[in-house]
Amino acid sequence: MTTPLRLGIAGLGTVGIGVVKIIQAHGDLLAARSGRPVVITAVSARSRDKDRGADLSAYAWEDDPVALATRDDVDVFVELMGGAEGPAKDATQAAIAAGKDVVTANKAMLALHGQDLAEQAEAADVVIRFEAAVAGGIPVVKALTEGLAGNAIRRVMGVMNGTCNYILTRMESSGLPYADVFEEANQLGYLEADPTLDVGGIDAGHKLSLLASVAFGTRVAFDAVELEGIERISIQDIRHAADMGFKIKLLGVAQMTGRGLEQRMSPCLVPDTSPLGQLDGGTNMVVLEGDSVGQIVLRGAGAGEGPTASAVMSDVIDIARGIRVPTFGVPAAQLEPAPPAKAAVPAPYYLRMRLFDKPGALAKVAAALGEAGISIDRMRQYGHSNETAPVLIVTHKTTRDALDHAMAGFAATGVVEGEPVAIRIEEV
Amino acid sequence: MTTPLRLGIAGLGTVGIGVVKIIQAHGDLLAARSGRPVVITAVSARSRDKDRGADLSAYAWEDDPVALATRDDVDVFVELMGGAEGPAKDATQAAIAAGKDVVTANKAMLALHGQDLAEQAEAADVVIRFEAAVAGGIPVVKALTEGLAGNAIRRVMGVMNGTCNYILTRMESSGLPYADVFEEANQLGYLEADPTLDVGGIDAGHKLSLLASVAFGTRVAFDAVELEGIERISIQDIRHAADMGFKIKLLGVAQMTGRGLEQRMSPCLVPDTSPLGQLDGGTNMVVLEGDSVGQIVLRGAGAGEGPTASAVMSDVIDIARGIRVPTFGVPAAQLEPAPPAKAAVPAPYYLRMRLFDKPGALAKVAAALGEAGISIDRMRQYGHSNETAPVLIVTHKTTRDALDHAMAGFAATGVVEGEPVAIRIEEV
Repeated sequence: MTTPLRLGIAGLGTVGIGVVKIIQAHGDLLAARSGRPVVITAVSARSRDKDRGADLSAYAWEDDPVALATRDDVDVFVELMGGAEGPAKDATQAAIAAGKDVVTANKAMLALHGQDLAEQAEAADVVIRFEAAVAGGIPVVKALTEGLAGNAIRRVMGVMNGTCNYILTRMESSGLPYADVFEEANQLGYLEADPTLDVGGIDAGHKLSLLASVAFGTRVAFDAVELEGIERISIQDIRHAADMGFKIKLLGVAQMTGRGLEQRMSPCLVPDTSPLGQLDGGTNMVVLEGDSVGQIVLRGAGAGEGPTASAVMSDVIDIARGIRVPTFGVPAAQLEPAPPAKAAVPAPYYLRMRLFDKPGALAKVAAALGEAGISIDRMRQYGHSNETAPVLIVTHKTTRDALDHAMAGFAATGVVEGEPVAIRIEEV
Repeated sequence: MTTPLRLGIAGLGTVGIGVVKIIQAHGDLLAARSGRPVVITAVSARSRDKDRGADLSAYAWEDDPVALATRDDVDVFVELMGGAEGPAKDATQAAIAAGKDVVTANKAMLALHGQDLAEQAEAADVVIRFEAAVAGGIPVVKALTEGLAGNAIRRVMGVMNGTCNYILTRMESSGLPYADVFEEANQLGYLEADPTLDVGGIDAGHKLSLLASVAFGTRVAFDAVELEGIERISIQDIRHAADMGFKIKLLGVAQMTGRGLEQRMSPCLVPDTSPLGQLDGGTNMVVLEGDSVGQIVLRGAGAGEGPTASAVMSDVIDIARGIRVPTFGVPAAQLEPAPPAKAAVPAPYYLRMRLFDKPGALAKVAAALGEAGISIDRMRQYGHSNETAPVLIVTHKTTRDALDHAMAGFAATGVVEGEPVAIRIEEV
């Protein structure tokens, strides 16, 4: 098979140009590995005149991505525009209808429309590939779909938003509060145009929902992801967690339980000696747990031109080689609509509160926990400042329901100032 | 495609039985992912009567693995006997000649005969897959061959022998000398029948040579791997390295340089804060560096029933899905006979020696280093005991040649007791 594989690339931002550069630099290497040349025939972006730092003169230009996606001289439509709706989705559907394979980095589109698109692709006998949509350069979709295909997956976890991890790491190292570090990250250009996508956990939630589908053979269910961002993480909690041997991470967890599929993207404490705990800065990490393989940890750059383009090229080369795995690992019709678990599996929790300096204050808090059936693993009271003293508690495993019950009980004691902070400790 | 894929499994040790158990437990899951049922039709092992903890009654039995490999009702020959020569190789060649695909966990056979077998397989239009041969359950062959296929690979590193890492970790935590921990590992059954395979670095060297081939598109060249085991690592070096912020690991490094392909499997110091430095116990880790993706780290169980069987099943499911990547990522005829680099790329070194208590002793050592063109990054002298004092030196980057020159110079100074210890510090 020496017919070239012909790509049409829509979207010439960082990732699109990264793909162009790889193809221009590594023609022989790609041909050797693919068994055939991989070439670009046409490209599309919003502005034709912009200097993008790569020579695009050899490629046909289309203003309209739909026109690009349906060109006769395009075998694979490479969708790197982004956005859940609009041109990206229109062009993807047009490509499928025209019998083109699709490679995309578009997590939002797949998180919201993955099932429909996968069904359309299978009906048209084409494939959609999305390695670049999850954890950048880390080949995690391939690891789950193919590398661990002999396993029943137990749990998938990950730090999949480098910006959030950068902010949390920087808060710890600098001692600066969230708002200051957020502003820093903004100045450095680390944040999406709508920063809620990052710090609200939405972007990472999109990724988690895709991994969950691949891991458990279920329909993508982004709506069912329990989302909580990092906006309310305080420098106090980062410091106190460190004192107790933990780091705070925006951690995605997908887990199939007897009561349904649990999907959470929220701040969690993890032991500072664990691979997740040791992950500093903008790097991503995904932890995969299978019944045979045990725990596999993958770490790498989660964003950026080179890493994301590397993932796009992995999908392109697979297609060139004739590898045609279904979008989410099994045929779309066989994906099951997993009922969401109503409550997370029990876990230990970290509690922080301030107690008024009254005799028996600590005993009252302990009693409220006891009444909710929660036992205490460790407790620390710090020196007083003003009229209240900070108290940290690490509980044994409990449910969020029991914890909410206990926290309601705290109010009645009259010894707790304000709202206690409760953060789940994920056992990794 | 709903025709079952029929396996013939030769070798019913830990891994073989692990594969049987996965297929018996996960029939529906495997069929959904593969697009067709995966079944075992026949098995072979040395003793038919042994109780192996799995029901084998549904499978035909062959005493002779060659007979198994060539059965009409076998599509894929699963070779889990081990051994570079003899029955494993005979049966593999017979399978290829009979037009069967081959899945194997046999690193020794591929390290020594990989090129021949790959050529034979391609001539017969069958594939050989060997994910289980390298780093157990970690899908690293797939990550390199497919996941990072868009990259020119710069360097591949790894801790790929869990037994050695266990011994080094245990020496550090217990303070026991090598001989004692070796004996402990032996009692625990962690060592191969010929322990030199483990502690001499041969087993890990086999794995490294396979990864190098896949990474650089070169012919497997195990003979060119510079091998050094962990037998001479002393508890003093482990402690002193820790004092200087390093861990000692049996580290494999393959790197394409301007002067040829460098392949080393030897004890190295790595920073204790790096992922490799933080890898304790029997776990494996592989670090892949590509020109686009940057650094990808993979971590997981490197041995054992479940993890290794998981890797075997990954290959089996790939074949069931119709994925047919060449054995070493590109066609065997295109693999290049990479000339081995004559010397390792420069690196910092750790030096430990004992100096006699004479005036100017340290100055003489420093002068010998200076004459060899080696500059000193850090130096520590410890308190005297008897007539000599331990001295640790971390050099700046230098070549092994320059270092050997300097060490020869030490002898002439008359202030160094015995042989200095020199260990490379790998920049990870």
